[in-house]
Amino acid sequence: MKAILPTLDENRKRPYYLQLYDYISNAIIRGDILEGEKLPSLRNLAKSTGLSITTIEQCYNQLLVEGYIFSKAQSGYYVSKVFPHSETTVPVEKGLSVPQYSDMQSALADEPKVFRHDPGCFDFNKWKKCMNKILTEYSSTLFFEGDPQGESVLRREIARYLYISRGVSCSPEQIIIGAGTQQITNHLATILRKLGIEHVSLESPGYLPVRNIFRDRGFSITDVVVADDGLVIEKLPANVRTAAYLSPSNNMFTGAVMPVGRRYELLNWAKANDSYIIEDDYDSELRYFGKPIPALKSLENSDRVIYLGSFSSTLFAAVKISYMVLPAEMAWLFSSMAADYSQTCSKLEQLTLALFMETGNYRTHIKKLRNLYSQKLDLVTDTLDQAASDFIEVRNTSSGMNIVLKVTSSKSSEQLKKEAESLGLPISVLEDDLFIFYYNQLPLAEIPDLLKSLAALWHS
Amino acid sequence: MKAILPTLDENRKRPYYLQLYDYISNAIIRGDILEGEKLPSLRNLAKSTGLSITTIEQCYNQLLVEGYIFSKAQSGYYVSKVFPHSETTVPVEKGLSVPQYSDMQSALADEPKVFRHDPGCFDFNKWKKCMNKILTEYSSTLFFEGDPQGESVLRREIARYLYISRGVSCSPEQIIIGAGTQQITNHLATILRKLGIEHVSLESPGYLPVRNIFRDRGFSITDVVVADDGLVIEKLPANVRTAAYLSPSNNMFTGAVMPVGRRYELLNWAKANDSYIIEDDYDSELRYFGKPIPALKSLENSDRVIYLGSFSSTLFAAVKISYMVLPAEMAWLFSSMAADYSQTCSKLEQLTLALFMETGNYRTHIKKLRNLYSQKLDLVTDTLDQAASDFIEVRNTSSGMNIVLKVTSSKSSEQLKKEAESLGLPISVLEDDLFIFYYNQLPLAEIPDLLKSLAALWHS
Repeated sequence: MKAILPTLDENRKRPYYLQLYDYISNAIIRGDILEGEKLPSLRNLAKSTGLSITTIEQCYNQLLVEGYIFSKAQSGYYVSKVFPHSETTVPVEKGLSVPQYSDMQSALADEPKVFRHDPGCFDFNKWKKCMNKILTEYSSTLFFEGDPQGESVLRREIARYLYISRGVSCSPEQIIIGAGTQQITNHLATILRKLGIEHVSLESPGYLPVRNIFRDRGFSITDVVVADDGLVIEKLPANVRTAAYLSPSNNMFTGAVMPVGRRYELLNWAKANDSYIIEDDYDSELRYFGKPIPALKSLENSDRVIYLGSFSSTLFAAVKISYMVLPAEMAWLFSSMAADYSQTCSKLEQLTLALFMETGNYRTHIKKLRNLYSQKLDLVTDTLDQAASDFIEVRNTSSGMNIVLKVTSSKSSEQLKKEAESLGLPISVLEDDLFIFYYNQLPLAEIPDLLKSLAALWHS
Repeated sequence: MKAILPTLDENRKRPYYLQLYDYISNAIIRGDILEGEKLPSLRNLAKSTGLSITTIEQCYNQLLVEGYIFSKAQSGYYVSKVFPHSETTVPVEKGLSVPQYSDMQSALADEPKVFRHDPGCFDFNKWKKCMNKILTEYSSTLFFEGDPQGESVLRREIARYLYISRGVSCSPEQIIIGAGTQQITNHLATILRKLGIEHVSLESPGYLPVRNIFRDRGFSITDVVVADDGLVIEKLPANVRTAAYLSPSNNMFTGAVMPVGRRYELLNWAKANDSYIIEDDYDSELRYFGKPIPALKSLENSDRVIYLGSFSSTLFAAVKISYMVLPAEMAWLFSSMAADYSQTCSKLEQLTLALFMETGNYRTHIKKLRNLYSQKLDLVTDTLDQAASDFIEVRNTSSGMNIVLKVTSSKSSEQLKKEAESLGLPISVLEDDLFIFYYNQLPLAEIPDLLKSLAALWHS
């Protein structure tokens, strides 16, 4: 056996006994010390290495526990049979590859900030106060996993809020909370399948991520065109049970709003065809004229509407709290399978939001946001009118989240998108010369200059 | 047309224009006001109701937007065609069903606390400090959605930590963060399928939720028995590419630990069969003797081990942050599909944890926890030894999370479980007379009395 002569480094954080352990285990792996060989006694190795007997003992215990060596009573320590076959590839010595260190401040500063943002959109101080209250006064609840359906205190606040703001009557038991629309839609797909529904009807143009989820879950899909008064009900399938997914209060791309008469028609269609309606009410709180349009869910009496809502666009993008309101029958089905699901939405953030709503902060915040976004919208449309009315036409100006731009240009839509992004402006291509422009994250004061730069860049 | 005589309630929070809107829209729905009928002029309705003209105008505008009424120039407002068919069921008037209100304090107090917990297991003050620092100094990053793969600053900290504590060398790019083992396992199932692997081999006894996920995702399953030196490698399938899921450092139910020689055999098996190993290292940090046993992942050189870890059992149950370390090939595959996934794990909690680790709080916390849990374990075994050695045998005492109890009793296992739960003790049935007892959440000082009560109850 080769002598055990480890190079010990007092500057490393790794304690001596583990440095010695590294040395000996690597020697066994490399075959420098062979199966059946006897290791030096504690006293002898302590002497030859200059380490204490306790340190050697700690090291041997570790090798023992891991099966590298075994002990014979009254005799000493021996090397175990480590490799089962002689042809085994011997692993190379583990190299130090700790990722290069940088502190959080510089790491976060290094992250590419592609798009602009407006710190005025959310007051983190109030949020922090609520969160600290949970962490101080209710921390004991955090020792337990969250409710798979979502925290009951938050579901209660949502039910109250939906009644007051959207006319939707529901009990907290009908509400399922999830971490984002994707997760909620996945749960919904599972429930629909259990009810024997394997077909969805989607607005065209509509929201792509939702289409992908249903496609991945094996649903058949019918695309249904959207007219000025919303989804064309006559184009919905009548020969198959389906779930029609739509945003009746504001089609994401065209801004189409479904009038109340059509809404009742849609409800009748669902009832007549034993089908369901999935109402994505994504920006209801950020619409400008009058009170938001009442939800389909608030008009129905046959329990066929699944209502989807989210807090990501009204709080801040990194908070992923979405929810759905299920018909009673579906809620019952979900509760029977809830034990199989673990809630991924942060319990702490759910409780914080519940407190934020209970204390009235949420309603005040929404009021401020509506006001702020409507100022931004005015400024955006005015600036574009003055600077680019000859080649940019603004459409669908009723949403607090985005507008649609029709651009007349010889440049490709990809090129136009790139140019917008070079200014930090978030834009996506809808089709050909139509773009969705998410103006609400731009700081108010910067809007005129930014849009003038955009007009100049696009026009060049 | 019936006269418009709304009962307005000045004590309700709902503004008058919306109370009037409720009255008129309900009247239209009920058929009290019919299609084509003309509404009173602004001035006349203001006069008859005693409201201001502005209020009436707000109300009419809302009815207009929603399609209940339409306006004819120079003429006035008329009721729209709301119901498409005469046989339409008329919805009943929306009843007030705001869920009964109670504030958060009483609501949280009402939650059934089935099991005991030990506030000494986590110091929320330090966590709060880190979280407040993020909310104060880095809040701008919260205006953007999180990285689908997990926050890069946290992945960096995990890579550093894994190298130091578990000997695992990996780059942050190989780490995927998710909200709990379920989500991580689901991602993994997707990746395995893309690699053409549709078979898993699971330890028996093993962890049921993982089995359910693979079953639901359509995988074939082979159960492999666990012996005293861990999973029996000879029973692994050799004729099919598979992923073997195991906890080599501590089988959850038997406490079996796989010695290093068997670990190399397992790595060889994976290579020879073009298969993978999923190493669930769930309690590695909370094991007592010596240093935790090195991970399989740290021994390999052929990139066939997927390493799973979690923070829920070392921080607090409500924080759902898990991760996996993927072989380079799989990490590449994940990054190509990451755009389709939205991260559901809270960005704020991820950043908080990264800071908690960077500042050394996590390592200090783990040290304290190991010490605390080992005291608890001693107390549990001592108390049971004194109070119930005649009918309770304690097994697998190497985990900081749970022990296995073998109980000799004429009562059914379900009955014994119920009796334990009546004392707030978390216990689950493993098989027949074997129970898993999660002792680590019991407050240290209460352990002797609680276990004496349990012994008396079970013995009665």
